[in-house]
Amino acid sequence: MTALNNVQHYMKSEHIDFLFFDDPLTVAYLTGFESDPHERVTAAIIFEDVFWLLVPAMEAPSARAVNGHARIISYKDEESPWALLKVALDTDAFVSQKIGIDEDSLLVSRYHSLQGIFPDASFVNSVSIIQNLRVLKQPYEIEILKEAGDLADKALEIGMASLKNGITEEEVVALIEYGIKKYGVKEMSFPTMVLFGDHAASPHGTPGKRQLKPNEWVLFDLGVVYNGYTSDMTRTVVYGKADEETKEIYTVVKEAQEKAQALVKPGISAASIDHAARNHIEKAGYGQYFTHRLGHGLGKSVHEFPDIAPGVELIIEESMCFSIEPGIYIEDFYGVRVEDCIYVTEDGAQPLTHTSKELIELPIKD
Amino acid sequence: MTALNNVQHYMKSEHIDFLFFDDPLTVAYLTGFESDPHERVTAAIIFEDVFWLLVPAMEAPSARAVNGHARIISYKDEESPWALLKVALDTDAFVSQKIGIDEDSLLVSRYHSLQGIFPDASFVNSVSIIQNLRVLKQPYEIEILKEAGDLADKALEIGMASLKNGITEEEVVALIEYGIKKYGVKEMSFPTMVLFGDHAASPHGTPGKRQLKPNEWVLFDLGVVYNGYTSDMTRTVVYGKADEETKEIYTVVKEAQEKAQALVKPGISAASIDHAARNHIEKAGYGQYFTHRLGHGLGKSVHEFPDIAPGVELIIEESMCFSIEPGIYIEDFYGVRVEDCIYVTEDGAQPLTHTSKELIELPIKD
Repeated sequence: MTALNNVQHYMKSEHIDFLFFDDPLTVAYLTGFESDPHERVTAAIIFEDVFWLLVPAMEAPSARAVNGHARIISYKDEESPWALLKVALDTDAFVSQKIGIDEDSLLVSRYHSLQGIFPDASFVNSVSIIQNLRVLKQPYEIEILKEAGDLADKALEIGMASLKNGITEEEVVALIEYGIKKYGVKEMSFPTMVLFGDHAASPHGTPGKRQLKPNEWVLFDLGVVYNGYTSDMTRTVVYGKADEETKEIYTVVKEAQEKAQALVKPGISAASIDHAARNHIEKAGYGQYFTHRLGHGLGKSVHEFPDIAPGVELIIEESMCFSIEPGIYIEDFYGVRVEDCIYVTEDGAQPLTHTSKELIELPIKD
Repeated sequence: MTALNNVQHYMKSEHIDFLFFDDPLTVAYLTGFESDPHERVTAAIIFEDVFWLLVPAMEAPSARAVNGHARIISYKDEESPWALLKVALDTDAFVSQKIGIDEDSLLVSRYHSLQGIFPDASFVNSVSIIQNLRVLKQPYEIEILKEAGDLADKALEIGMASLKNGITEEEVVALIEYGIKKYGVKEMSFPTMVLFGDHAASPHGTPGKRQLKPNEWVLFDLGVVYNGYTSDMTRTVVYGKADEETKEIYTVVKEAQEKAQALVKPGISAASIDHAARNHIEKAGYGQYFTHRLGHGLGKSVHEFPDIAPGVELIIEESMCFSIEPGIYIEDFYGVRVEDCIYVTEDGAQPLTHTSKELIELPIKD
């Protein structure tokens, strides 16, 4: 059963007349139509047996090329997509009493536009059906995620090879992003993060003009988009030799990551995976310095359902994909994070990235 | 009067108790706090005389660094930002009967969360106050936009210099994005578009492995983010020599762009600027091939209010910034677009990018 069939099955059981989805990733996931619509409405209208695509006029040829069997409703910039949708539904005498939406991606203004054209309809939040489908990766999706992971390993390799005295964080980012494009990568899954020394103590720091000095730590957090799927990994390595204190903290984080990863198997809760890593860091005395969730889902989007965090009682199933990324951040001193994304098999976690997590000490270069 | 003061003035006149804005660009515009929060709630809560920032725990240090005078409400991944906001408001005995939101950026799920904690409040759409402020660029903003424009010119120069027999669209993109990073650019304002020959006939085509051949046209559409502001420009140039037919079509588009740009002045409507270009293309017999609006606003976001399109009766004022980008797209044959972003002065339009719009024929290189 395809994802679309699954969704249509759900609609039937819930007596939903149609679904309106305008998250470009959901549209691509269900219909195969990839787009980057910015502020222009691009939506899949899904009925029990067919679906329509509502697209800007200039996207109509691409939409038609991908979905020969779907009806394409296209609107010019000066037309209202809502009015055209209403006319199309009325003309075909479709019922529109119960409409499913994804509240996690629909904007309030569009919601009000829908309410405006369907004043008597009831709206239900259908985010779960999409989440529950997208969270379980199909074999073809895992194959693409593996390739995206391999490219992240490659990007990290490029970054590590570029380290030399005086190079700036920005320059390393530029070299990584340029180097990886030769392998067919069109975009990174988020702005590449390269942070030197105590600059890495901010978990969301921004690479700048800071220059690399011998024996500094370097944090790399990066990923690519490949065939519509993402990767995401973090390694913190030493340019030169590490002192004992930071090496010890590194080991705590690495062990926390490995403990959590080893625990993953179908049937365990997300919270207990988080707890394994958090508990290890707390016991080592650094609990207050681990300030974020352990992980997040990953697929077409680099951050998606589910969270791997305290209190998340979700039960892990085979074919889920998520990150495991504990960190310790001590302001003005040191920041370290170790992250692999994994997919769940019946035997446990399989990582999507393979760069060693042992302490990496790189040679100093002039 | 700062933008924040303006907003607070508006609140007073509309009797709004507080504004909830979570568009990261609006938060940065009003409070100076730049962030890239992905799915984590990051919002400015604006009262008549103070403002708060609601941020994830790991962003709290950066938020505090930028806004020493603001109250920072930070939440951990396992906490509810909504519950913390409610407690903070109750503790300080703030009234929350009329709440302003930006319906064009707020998600329905967050709207429902707000309704959940303030069940008796009325919500008003305050998007206009933000749009009306952001649309009129302050002198310091125009200075940054000019710099962002200069960097787009530079990026285009890098792209044109890279053209040679057999190079792929993807490779040209990689060279541009790498080359421009040396000038301090951290990210492009959108994925750089480089399209060869009839590939440019799709206004939103994707660069691929197509190889450049002599005497093909090359469309570049690109821009950078610089100090929180964007640029956006398009040039279509010839690699070698153009034939008469495509040269003629190029001239139609170029003249349409120039006619529209020449018409810009305070007091004219957006629709009439669009009409000047559209009419010129229609008269030349290519009306059906110009399938999109003439332009869009530009500032912190590369696509923002207002549209320059048929039917938009908005009156242009001094200090507005927008793109003027007519195009002709003939499937399987040819695509051309010419785009400058401009800012409006009392004397007319001043372009933010300066690369010549005359026909550019580049030398063939092996």
